[in-house]
Amino acid sequence: MEVKVVKKVLSVNDTMAHQNRKYFSDKKVFVLNMMSSPGSGKTSILEKTVGRLLPEINSAIIVGDICTTNDADRLAKTGVPVIQICTDDFGGDCHLAAHIVGNAASDLDLDGVQLLIVENVGNLVCPAEFDIGEDARVVVLSVTEGEDKPLKYPLMFRVCDAALLNKTDLLPYLDFDREAVINNIRQIHSDMPVFEVSAKTQDGFPAWILWLKKQVEKKVG
Amino acid sequence: MEVKVVKKVLSVNDTMAHQNRKYFSDKKVFVLNMMSSPGSGKTSILEKTVGRLLPEINSAIIVGDICTTNDADRLAKTGVPVIQICTDDFGGDCHLAAHIVGNAASDLDLDGVQLLIVENVGNLVCPAEFDIGEDARVVVLSVTEGEDKPLKYPLMFRVCDAALLNKTDLLPYLDFDREAVINNIRQIHSDMPVFEVSAKTQDGFPAWILWLKKQVEKKVG
Repeated sequence: MEVKVVKKVLSVNDTMAHQNRKYFSDKKVFVLNMMSSPGSGKTSILEKTVGRLLPEINSAIIVGDICTTNDADRLAKTGVPVIQICTDDFGGDCHLAAHIVGNAASDLDLDGVQLLIVENVGNLVCPAEFDIGEDARVVVLSVTEGEDKPLKYPLMFRVCDAALLNKTDLLPYLDFDREAVINNIRQIHSDMPVFEVSAKTQDGFPAWILWLKKQVEKKVG
Repeated sequence: MEVKVVKKVLSVNDTMAHQNRKYFSDKKVFVLNMMSSPGSGKTSILEKTVGRLLPEINSAIIVGDICTTNDADRLAKTGVPVIQICTDDFGGDCHLAAHIVGNAASDLDLDGVQLLIVENVGNLVCPAEFDIGEDARVVVLSVTEGEDKPLKYPLMFRVCDAALLNKTDLLPYLDFDREAVINNIRQIHSDMPVFEVSAKTQDGFPAWILWLKKQVEKKVG
């Protein structure tokens, strides 16, 4: 009984994701779903990313949290259009569902926008299960979270198209095995690109920006 | 329809939690539910905690992950009985449900054990919604996760009885506002004890251990 209902909810979500995908395709917008644990640095990465995509790529951002508009307030300072979704209004959802993203997107003026980034709710489990109509998914893992996370949360690393290994500026102060985490990612997703970055120092950003630009250009020319 | 089913699932969970609570009470065991984001340091804290509770308090541990037995392997080295739950066998659940904890507990010999610690799945959202029959709940927040997390994930901080602010050894290398995070916790849960600790250096452990011992002794004498 329970499984049946869960399947039904997922199938409703898939239908809405399909509608979103068509809408984004008509608008010629590439959609990136960015996911991670709480505090891995998604917002900090985006603060440093959107400016570097200019002038070729104009971005817009939808940011999901259970509560607060902190992230939208921070991201608005970059000058890109930002919409904050607070899932507390929908029962405190632990992920962004397709219909919520679709509603938020319809409030954004996407003319002249080539890239819509959806910063999902901080959660390394549930968001991986919900298609939102995106073109690509990236997972952010902070080096402070430990090398074993790809093996412990395999679905997230399986469904994503690239991984960002953030906060590399802290490596001198951690017992963190860089090679081990990359091996663990490869065990789950053998050909996944891994970008080692520091949102603080912007080390490693050129490779990440180049990859992202290529993804967007493949869709929207 | 969806809400009705979710309520039904939660109510089944509450019934099982009630059964667990009776079982633990009969066994004179205090049960602590430990929750956090992935990689906040729950396992490291427990590695340093169980030895410090001896000789007054003997512990056992149930540890929940989606995949791997990494944490149980680490915790077994402390000499306490440990059982690993992999929720991948139950559809990759993002939290520990009461019946799963009850099953695992029935496999543990709790004679002579005063404290059962349940290390929940790394997730700052969903585990807060599921009663497992525990006597107390603690949330671990790493200083690398940022000051705003109590405001963004209020349910977790509302339902917990104490907070551990971990990885304080990294403070010199972070732009982290200690007072802000404590103010944010107090906004959600005004009288919550906050223990600032480093699992690496064991700074701050005496106050945490003292609090934990008092909780256990209140129940089991």
